[in-house]
Amino acid sequence: MREGSELSVINLLQKCSLLTEQWAPRVVAELNDHQIKVVRVEGDFVWHDHPDTDEMFLVLEGRLRIDLRDGESVELGQGEMFVVPKGVVHKPYAEAEAKVLLIEPRGVVNTGSAEGGERTAEPDVWV
Amino acid sequence: MREGSELSVINLLQKCSLLTEQWAPRVVAELNDHQIKVVRVEGDFVWHDHPDTDEMFLVLEGRLRIDLRDGESVELGQGEMFVVPKGVVHKPYAEAEAKVLLIEPRGVVNTGSAEGGERTAEPDVWV
Repeated sequence: MREGSELSVINLLQKCSLLTEQWAPRVVAELNDHQIKVVRVEGDFVWHDHPDTDEMFLVLEGRLRIDLRDGESVELGQGEMFVVPKGVVHKPYAEAEAKVLLIEPRGVVNTGSAEGGERTAEPDVWV
Repeated sequence: MREGSELSVINLLQKCSLLTEQWAPRVVAELNDHQIKVVRVEGDFVWHDHPDTDEMFLVLEGRLRIDLRDGESVELGQGEMFVVPKGVVHKPYAEAEAKVLLIEPRGVVNTGSAEGGERTAEPDVWV
């Protein structure tokens, strides 16, 4: 936990309003070795997986589709969540901007095994 | 992850509607060694802490107050979250029923260090 944040109530949509770019998750809190992040997304992300960790998605506003490698996909509306199991290749997509909460261990890079492309964001940046 | 749940989209308020009693958290998903739970709460819980783990609260509906031992408290409305750091004594309270998402490691008992009272619920029960 960051110094001085001990008694901070975190309003997730207010935190989303501070995000200046899409597809760049920003940390809002830590829970043991995991980080809670918010992200604004629109359009297509890149196919990737996280070989060592599950990843939780919870839609705060809008709609999010998560495509999975075998042609399957899940559609999440506001208040709906999904956990992508570790090692499962996936590609988030949003037709219009969606605001999403992510939870994964500290230090995970957003593009996982596809690290290095234009969608790759610096990990561990707070908002 | 439970067998057969791999592609389950989880609607958190729909899961809350399946809860038959207050103050009894039920697991809806797992994320690595952590569990995502929903709970319906109303009135006063008991003072307790979790010596070995942080605990995340996110209000899905209603309002939740979390009292802290030194006379401080935090008030959470819908879409607001708070992480109680490990070892910090706290007591949740809701004037009217609130629906809350909790995240903590697998196997954590709701009453923590105050385990054994009437508010103690069986851990690791899914809804």
